[in-house]
Amino acid sequence: MNDFDDIGNVKRYDGDVGIVESSDYFCDKPLKFKLGGELSSFNVRYETYGRLNADKTNAILVCHALTGDHHCAGVYDINDRKSGWWNNIIGPDKPLDTNKYFIICSNCIGGCRGTTGPSSVDPLTGFRYNLKFPAITIQDMVAVQERLVSHLGIDKLAMVVGGSMGGMQALQWAIDFPDRAERICALATTSHQNAQAIAFNEVGRSAIMQDPVWNGGNYELARIPSVGLGIARMMAHITYLSDKGLEGKFGREHTSIRGEDIFKPSFEIENYLHYQGQSFVNRFDANTYLYFTRALDLFDLRLNGGSLEAAFAGVKARFLVVGFTSDWLFPPAQNREIVKALLRNGKTASYAEIKSDLGHDSFLIHSPKLYKLVENFLDV
Amino acid sequence: MNDFDDIGNVKRYDGDVGIVESSDYFCDKPLKFKLGGELSSFNVRYETYGRLNADKTNAILVCHALTGDHHCAGVYDINDRKSGWWNNIIGPDKPLDTNKYFIICSNCIGGCRGTTGPSSVDPLTGFRYNLKFPAITIQDMVAVQERLVSHLGIDKLAMVVGGSMGGMQALQWAIDFPDRAERICALATTSHQNAQAIAFNEVGRSAIMQDPVWNGGNYELARIPSVGLGIARMMAHITYLSDKGLEGKFGREHTSIRGEDIFKPSFEIENYLHYQGQSFVNRFDANTYLYFTRALDLFDLRLNGGSLEAAFAGVKARFLVVGFTSDWLFPPAQNREIVKALLRNGKTASYAEIKSDLGHDSFLIHSPKLYKLVENFLDV
Repeated sequence: MNDFDDIGNVKRYDGDVGIVESSDYFCDKPLKFKLGGELSSFNVRYETYGRLNADKTNAILVCHALTGDHHCAGVYDINDRKSGWWNNIIGPDKPLDTNKYFIICSNCIGGCRGTTGPSSVDPLTGFRYNLKFPAITIQDMVAVQERLVSHLGIDKLAMVVGGSMGGMQALQWAIDFPDRAERICALATTSHQNAQAIAFNEVGRSAIMQDPVWNGGNYELARIPSVGLGIARMMAHITYLSDKGLEGKFGREHTSIRGEDIFKPSFEIENYLHYQGQSFVNRFDANTYLYFTRALDLFDLRLNGGSLEAAFAGVKARFLVVGFTSDWLFPPAQNREIVKALLRNGKTASYAEIKSDLGHDSFLIHSPKLYKLVENFLDV
Repeated sequence: MNDFDDIGNVKRYDGDVGIVESSDYFCDKPLKFKLGGELSSFNVRYETYGRLNADKTNAILVCHALTGDHHCAGVYDINDRKSGWWNNIIGPDKPLDTNKYFIICSNCIGGCRGTTGPSSVDPLTGFRYNLKFPAITIQDMVAVQERLVSHLGIDKLAMVVGGSMGGMQALQWAIDFPDRAERICALATTSHQNAQAIAFNEVGRSAIMQDPVWNGGNYELARIPSVGLGIARMMAHITYLSDKGLEGKFGREHTSIRGEDIFKPSFEIENYLHYQGQSFVNRFDANTYLYFTRALDLFDLRLNGGSLEAAFAGVKARFLVVGFTSDWLFPPAQNREIVKALLRNGKTASYAEIKSDLGHDSFLIHSPKLYKLVENFLDV
């Protein structure tokens, strides 16, 4: 751990992939969805960093979480001050080392950042799909990623990695395409969405679907159901953090609360949540939020054979699963359970638990311990 | 514990207070609110069970939580199938034994069940107060309860008891009226609302206040902001339960989810939440919800002197504080902290922690351990 200084700052991970651009893979081979429905063709937007080696064995697929996208590292131009969502872990000499690996990340099917989704125009009708888009499952997301990986000429990925919904995709890869990935790294995730997580998703969907602007999904893109989507995001955001983390960051700091302004946001935590809600509605599509949260609810690896053990019976990859102590959305026990089921199957799997006060979002945040785990996992 | 049978069912607590009716205390002495504003007069609706003894020393004040009211035991008529919210603990031979004690419970000031609140008509204008109602704090609630207790001729209460927001009132009683209560029993509560709890409240208020029907608080009572209030309740309801409790009760049970109906509530937890949201909007006022949640946010006992120790310096009552292991809204540690501060002050205080999977709502639910604790506390 001597690559970190005394106070835990990173010494060596100062590389960056620099200016990046997105690519599009247009697939005109029809896509059948797991729960019915199909697309005659679709687009996948993706980014890659680093170089694919000659025998195409150094590719790592990064899978994004609910509100993420394909832009996980670098910046779009010299003035772009916001780098991709996992820039801390991807780059030259970083754990997902672009000097060694070819990193791929695509926007999931059903997304709103370039890949075909409910806000795309259906070529058969000339209108947006909206709620006519087929129901999406994690399996469908993975099936589309497999098409992209094949399109890039890659037979076997060195690793599939992701956190939260991205971790679900990584696990699904191991089951659906056992010969196509050497390693699976799943962070802050679960083998099945439990009742509490479904409950929070349903409140968010209700807020969106009861916003009159939503209009059965047929809103104009110039006038979106921002109230409902904002409420959904504010609530969900609480579940990504932790009691202790919020207390440390915001506590009860507030401006004066008196008389008429009593219901105006006055506590710092209130202003923070409103900011999060507002910035989200400016970048995310409400219908995609419905589809993706439903894909989460429907996720249950045990359906692949009747139990988690049966689901993992045919996997061939090596696994690293990481839980974070303060994650109460997908708590450590849910992560540990995955590894236990793999080990009962005689598979190669490690579980690590990282102490953190940052809640579910811990997997996204600077963590020397996580970096070291990922590096070591790639070295074997 | 031999008053319970082998499987934990209650043997002796089968008494019931029977048919009850509410009373009204109209107070025409002006009420000044802690944060400014006043009412020239107000009504308090309350219920009592049992008989006040000759020297008026056997009165117990029960304080209700956020969405509770004054009807905490018995039924309103022979066909009333829903008894008061704490009927399990109040009645002849029950822990709050109406053969021995005179139980009082009033609807809090600002409420919507008979006590003057934002939905009441302001006698000075002839219109509903709505958002012209003064800001409410827990201290104001307690000040109004003190008026009622004095009106009933009671100098000193044998106990003030409540859970959650009711527990905050009980604690505030000890500080504001140290000579007026022999015992304080606070359940599943906190000495100050923390950032996460404020965050959830703010999402609920945002849902209400952004419901166009809310209209700045000036909705017609015939057309209420039921969408916003329903969302607020659905979300809050999740925080009253627990991950494990929800998993045990609902798990992933669902009807078939396919194609067009994919966003229809299909999981049992979804139907349960919608039912909770719907039944709530039929019984609760949206503006009262705003005022009461804000009173919760503003609650910080440390403001009474600068620290929790200073706040408790002058208290004279004996205390019983109870935390519940699966309560993540006001977790055990927050309850324990109250007792620690009391003990550091040399006060008489006990802390008990009850193992339960039922989350924050545990204090409302049949619990032989809680009954025994309360009985013992009243015996000393």
